[in-house]
Amino acid sequence: MTGIMDQARDYFVGLQSGIVQALESLDGQAFALDQWERPEGGGGISRVIEEGALFERGGCNFSHVMGDRLPPSASAHRPELAGRRWEAMGVSLVLHPRNPYVPTVHMNVRLFMTFTSSQQDRDVDGWCGGGMDLTPYYGFEDDARHFHLQCKNALDPFGKQWHPRFKRWCDEYFFLKHRQEARGVGGIFFDDLSEPSLEEAFALTRSVGDSFLDAYVPIVEKRRSTAYGERERDFQAYRRGRYVEFNLVFDRGTLFGLQSQGRTESILMSMPPIVKWRYNWRPEPDSPEASLYELIKPKDWV
Amino acid sequence: MTGIMDQARDYFVGLQSGIVQALESLDGQAFALDQWERPEGGGGISRVIEEGALFERGGCNFSHVMGDRLPPSASAHRPELAGRRWEAMGVSLVLHPRNPYVPTVHMNVRLFMTFTSSQQDRDVDGWCGGGMDLTPYYGFEDDARHFHLQCKNALDPFGKQWHPRFKRWCDEYFFLKHRQEARGVGGIFFDDLSEPSLEEAFALTRSVGDSFLDAYVPIVEKRRSTAYGERERDFQAYRRGRYVEFNLVFDRGTLFGLQSQGRTESILMSMPPIVKWRYNWRPEPDSPEASLYELIKPKDWV
Repeated sequence: MTGIMDQARDYFVGLQSGIVQALESLDGQAFALDQWERPEGGGGISRVIEEGALFERGGCNFSHVMGDRLPPSASAHRPELAGRRWEAMGVSLVLHPRNPYVPTVHMNVRLFMTFTSSQQDRDVDGWCGGGMDLTPYYGFEDDARHFHLQCKNALDPFGKQWHPRFKRWCDEYFFLKHRQEARGVGGIFFDDLSEPSLEEAFALTRSVGDSFLDAYVPIVEKRRSTAYGERERDFQAYRRGRYVEFNLVFDRGTLFGLQSQGRTESILMSMPPIVKWRYNWRPEPDSPEASLYELIKPKDWV
Repeated sequence: MTGIMDQARDYFVGLQSGIVQALESLDGQAFALDQWERPEGGGGISRVIEEGALFERGGCNFSHVMGDRLPPSASAHRPELAGRRWEAMGVSLVLHPRNPYVPTVHMNVRLFMTFTSSQQDRDVDGWCGGGMDLTPYYGFEDDARHFHLQCKNALDPFGKQWHPRFKRWCDEYFFLKHRQEARGVGGIFFDDLSEPSLEEAFALTRSVGDSFLDAYVPIVEKRRSTAYGERERDFQAYRRGRYVEFNLVFDRGTLFGLQSQGRTESILMSMPPIVKWRYNWRPEPDSPEASLYELIKPKDWV
């Protein structure tokens, strides 16, 4: 069973490097590379871009961290595992483009393992999680459809049941309860997946990671030259506030990272570069800004 | 015992109105007034300023909310009260000045009551909480000393034991664990106070509310005309990110509000108007920005 961790490490490191290479050639600017170690065990490779031509801020991080006692935020759904030795490994990506017509995107694939004792590595519980979701500012139905279709294509080879389930899970997970608002147009989200076997769950997870560029890059290419002005930048900065609210109040990955003495700067690479808050603001009826609030209402896209 | 709620309401509404009047005359711009009702019970009066000459964004809110079952975030320290009927009332204030030489400030005073049954209003558990704390960007030792001295003066008439205790509590509460950094230069913080009697605890709480203007206004007057440029505004926007991180990840009041279907826009008036995040940024050694990190290390100010 330990073989899966070595396999996973090779896969995740390769995925990060392939994605970063593709994004660098899209942007024209290189991602900085930061290798770090975690005093409590493990470490990671953070690849970060700031002030790029295309990406105002973003990152694609690999991390492999471990601990002697599983923290509560990781085991809410598996209380019987609390306190176990654990390892978590994965790639996590958030990109905040400068052009408000290019959507923000998030992708994450991860493998989580718990061990009953350091001597009994064969006696493990492991599961996979991940997904990707799209957060437009000035959005397009075509883009949402394309993104959802790619998500479906990634999952269908593993069974037709997964896409509807993970699509709905995404709509539920990325919902800002205090705003009664979706974070964006959604995508897919899954966690605690070890069916039908951990190996097959990990194959599905890899398929999600491998689909990311096909899901996102065509949208970038289609929208990156759309002209925009101060009005669009202002609305983008305002809407990015929702992204901050979601990640800091609700996101399990962020809270787990901050609780488990994760590397703060790598976890918070998801924060947008410039954000605005305004009191009780509403878009004008029938404005392009108002249409976003319609677009992000959860619906069947494929 | 119900008399205390009516008394408290009069006090809190008067405090809000007095503070807003003083701040309006400092700024020159009126605070907007928003009266709201909460579908689950209660409501409030939000007073908000945006794009003022002095205050870029800020608010001073009164709220009086109630519910049939106490949510978990309110009773972490009093698990025996979970599920009880409750009422909470208070004034909460956050001001984000435009000039980076004028510190951000937060003040809150509140009264919390729980009832074992709607028929037995005499059988209640109640407590007070509150405090105030100062968050400079380009800070001054004199200002920190003045602020702490006013906090001490507010508490000393009720016993010399309170100020050291509430000062330390503030340092502990407004600490960003994931950054290993204090939010600012501190002040005082207290909660769950019903000693030696609820009446006396509420008198102490009123004294804190009544001291706010004396603690903050002299600092504003001293610093509001200091010249600043893009560099100072940029550092202010960056440091405001810490304020967002604290309030959304750690602040009990914010989490309680969002969990108890509070009024989101009133709760999040604490969010700064413009915020920036940057990867792994550190101030240059011996720069004015670096000196802030020394100033905010918890220390005895009075």
